[in-house]
Amino acid sequence: MRGIVPQKVKGFRDISPNQNYLRQFIINRAEEVYKSFGFSRLDTPILEYAECLGKYLPDADSVAQGVYSFKNPEQEPVYDTKGKEMRDAENKVVMENHYLAMRYDLTAPLARVYAESLWQQHLRNEIQGKTNLFRRYQYGPVFRFEAKLDPGRFREFWQMDFDSVGVEDVAADAENCMILSTALENIGLKRGTYRIKINNRKIVNGLLSYAGITGAEEEMAVMRIIDKLDKIGAENVAAELGKGRVDEVSGAQIQGLNLSDNHIKLIMEFIKEFEKLGNRKDVLAKLASKPAAQNPIYKEGLDELEKIDTILASLGYDETVAVIDPGMVRGLGYYTGPIYEVESLQTYIDEKGRERRVGSICGGGRYDGLVENLLGVKVPATGASIGVDRLAELLTLTGQTPENQQGAVIIVVFDDNLMPLYQKTAADLRKNGINTEIYYGAKRGLKHQMAYADKNNCPIAVIIGEDEAKKGTATIKNLKLGKILADKIADKNEWKAKVQKEVELSCLAQKIKEELTIENN
Amino acid sequence: MRGIVPQKVKGFRDISPNQNYLRQFIINRAEEVYKSFGFSRLDTPILEYAECLGKYLPDADSVAQGVYSFKNPEQEPVYDTKGKEMRDAENKVVMENHYLAMRYDLTAPLARVYAESLWQQHLRNEIQGKTNLFRRYQYGPVFRFEAKLDPGRFREFWQMDFDSVGVEDVAADAENCMILSTALENIGLKRGTYRIKINNRKIVNGLLSYAGITGAEEEMAVMRIIDKLDKIGAENVAAELGKGRVDEVSGAQIQGLNLSDNHIKLIMEFIKEFEKLGNRKDVLAKLASKPAAQNPIYKEGLDELEKIDTILASLGYDETVAVIDPGMVRGLGYYTGPIYEVESLQTYIDEKGRERRVGSICGGGRYDGLVENLLGVKVPATGASIGVDRLAELLTLTGQTPENQQGAVIIVVFDDNLMPLYQKTAADLRKNGINTEIYYGAKRGLKHQMAYADKNNCPIAVIIGEDEAKKGTATIKNLKLGKILADKIADKNEWKAKVQKEVELSCLAQKIKEELTIENN
Repeated sequence: MRGIVPQKVKGFRDISPNQNYLRQFIINRAEEVYKSFGFSRLDTPILEYAECLGKYLPDADSVAQGVYSFKNPEQEPVYDTKGKEMRDAENKVVMENHYLAMRYDLTAPLARVYAESLWQQHLRNEIQGKTNLFRRYQYGPVFRFEAKLDPGRFREFWQMDFDSVGVEDVAADAENCMILSTALENIGLKRGTYRIKINNRKIVNGLLSYAGITGAEEEMAVMRIIDKLDKIGAENVAAELGKGRVDEVSGAQIQGLNLSDNHIKLIMEFIKEFEKLGNRKDVLAKLASKPAAQNPIYKEGLDELEKIDTILASLGYDETVAVIDPGMVRGLGYYTGPIYEVESLQTYIDEKGRERRVGSICGGGRYDGLVENLLGVKVPATGASIGVDRLAELLTLTGQTPENQQGAVIIVVFDDNLMPLYQKTAADLRKNGINTEIYYGAKRGLKHQMAYADKNNCPIAVIIGEDEAKKGTATIKNLKLGKILADKIADKNEWKAKVQKEVELSCLAQKIKEELTIENN
Repeated sequence: MRGIVPQKVKGFRDISPNQNYLRQFIINRAEEVYKSFGFSRLDTPILEYAECLGKYLPDADSVAQGVYSFKNPEQEPVYDTKGKEMRDAENKVVMENHYLAMRYDLTAPLARVYAESLWQQHLRNEIQGKTNLFRRYQYGPVFRFEAKLDPGRFREFWQMDFDSVGVEDVAADAENCMILSTALENIGLKRGTYRIKINNRKIVNGLLSYAGITGAEEEMAVMRIIDKLDKIGAENVAAELGKGRVDEVSGAQIQGLNLSDNHIKLIMEFIKEFEKLGNRKDVLAKLASKPAAQNPIYKEGLDELEKIDTILASLGYDETVAVIDPGMVRGLGYYTGPIYEVESLQTYIDEKGRERRVGSICGGGRYDGLVENLLGVKVPATGASIGVDRLAELLTLTGQTPENQQGAVIIVVFDDNLMPLYQKTAADLRKNGINTEIYYGAKRGLKHQMAYADKNNCPIAVIIGEDEAKKGTATIKNLKLGKILADKIADKNEWKAKVQKEVELSCLAQKIKEELTIENN
């Protein structure tokens, strides 16, 4: 017979109170910074029409692309390119169950929001010249079905994006880097422990174009391979640009792009030349000295990088914050100009004793074509994203988390008849600003109550038995101090004398406040 | 040709900065209270296995029940009742694409979390006696596909739950009512503008059982009809308990339960008797005087209500906060004991000039059977939920929202050459704790910049042209004050003199701080 195993969906996870505390800490600190730069919070639905997330995704394809997608339970009209309902031969409106998709990032929904606001103007051909400015931040879960899930990776994770739509000026890209830096430092990362790598897609596009490799698809294919440099190494990148290779782990044959040897040489030399990143001015000078600098796209990209460098330098963001990395391309298809990626330089020791890095914790760039995909109107835009859960992982693995949240003061329950007294006591403590919980568990043994208090990080237990109730007192036990002193004081009575005291109920709140602020020694 | 219309999925919506601010305000205020009662924050995934959300839901059924459900793209083993992988005749593991479901509330995922923690013990038959205490709060979106969507209703909306699992004592139910009251008042509702209605499922169960109507399904069917009382009125309730009726609006035939006239009379008299709610003691006395009070289930329910009343009274929660309403049943199937619902008593005038109420804004109760559905082990539990979006609607419609969030100070951009100065100025203001935005829009006209500032509720504009830059000054324009004075001062020069001033760049931050605190007169 078939049974039901209570379990989470594979690749999904519950978030514990401490994890929530850390996640919220990151969000609050980043939010302060995003707001200080003038962004406002927008939220969009978890579900969108699949076709609005950039392209139309039938079920099989969407799964292949990592999108959770399914048919809407209700039928709706199909529209033509003018936004009119399509009609069949009998003049009936054509109805369909459209595909819905769970958002796989926060950028595509932003493009939908912006395109939606332009849609009526678009129909009336009113969009001429430049589009309006719109800036927002957004955070929340995104969903990706990755068929092969690496350990420690999840199919639902949180991102925190900020974007400026209707912005041409690459000064905004420089500002994006400053925002990332300020946010990370507001969260607690020290300068020098992370690095923003900046590049421009136009540099790589220009280089390829100079070499005669043109066409968006071929360019993207090259960039996707270069993007794997850190993962697979230069030799394998060269192989994939050429005749392909056999994967060492899986033994699978990976098809190559079959570029000519000359092309491969050009690309690999370019990568090699910028392997070691010096100061930004030197890198820019070296970029300017390449023959490809004749190419107008390359030149445009270089000019933009120079502008970004000037702004960053003038505001004190030197190489300890941001470097220019001409070999960094970012895999995502939609970038069109400056791109940036933040890597953590901190290491941690994994369970096998190996020194490791968390890697990329933020990324972003300019994507002037995203709304165009949806609307056919060019809208310049730029933004970046903090990988909230990735950053939480970094803080945890490197021991940089804020102190765990303290639980509530717990009132131990001995006697049902005393429940009204417990409740009045709790209400009084809460009125004095002390979070207070009455132990309502069905398991009443003191052992169970103390185990619960321990698990929930309760700092103090309040014990009122029949004796205490008669005298109008309570015994308070400083659980936090008790844990600290357990290692220091061997004598049980001495320990108890420090940790436990009987106090008048009338001044319980005051005594508990004193206990909560006792120095840990 | 088929086109893509950029739009939200029907029944879904974007949340604007002001709506987000209000939603977050509600959450923060309620969170303070939940924490003060000792609850910690847990989060669960948006997606769950459909069968873990209470029962196995194949696609068609789940849609009928309002659950967004679809097949997992990956195959996984099917388990037997002992949690072992099932095998076919050839001893191969039976694989299947399980159904996934978007959570439709926050209670079912909690049951999954708790059952998951007990599962191994369950397999080893180790669960004897009482289960451990677990308390958590959670907030976030839930998803319901309602085929007929009422205006102003959505298929994605936010709830904020707190629950205590492993709790038998109905003192916890009394506490739940106190938490709801404290949270609502912390959010800003005045005492007397809302009312907690309390009842006990056992009263209704006992009444029906006393009358000879037994069996869970029939009881539920009766309660679902009684639950519609406010919506359809007593006459229609009686009709649905009997031979059915024709819906006035849709003309649809609604099948009746075909109860006997005696039974209908008993139920309708009971409802009528408690139509007007007096003080709690009177209602309890009246309940005790009914012949059905002989029924042991009814008696148990009554005892529990009396205990809840005593606790509430002793802590000062009188009839201005909570009443006992024996006619209130709450439709959800899983309640087993005390139930509560908070209705707002405030009215608003709708767009057609009618006086209206928002209705129920919170609900909750005891559900001792929920984990049992998943695990076959009885686990007592009780909790409640604030309908965050419903409450936000109430605050908005009755004009009780906190003041909208202020935008950032905006630096007007005239001249690309001055961009470094704009950026230094912005950085300096931010260092002084002033949220500051540089206008990066591609549309540079002053009209566009001011329209943007207006839309984003920017309090002050900083204007630095070539002249000002040379002098080392800036013109600051108090946009907030300007709006207020526009109605009061007719003379343009006088208005300008009050609203606009030139200041030294070196003391810009200080001057802006002064402007931000100017009294609105």
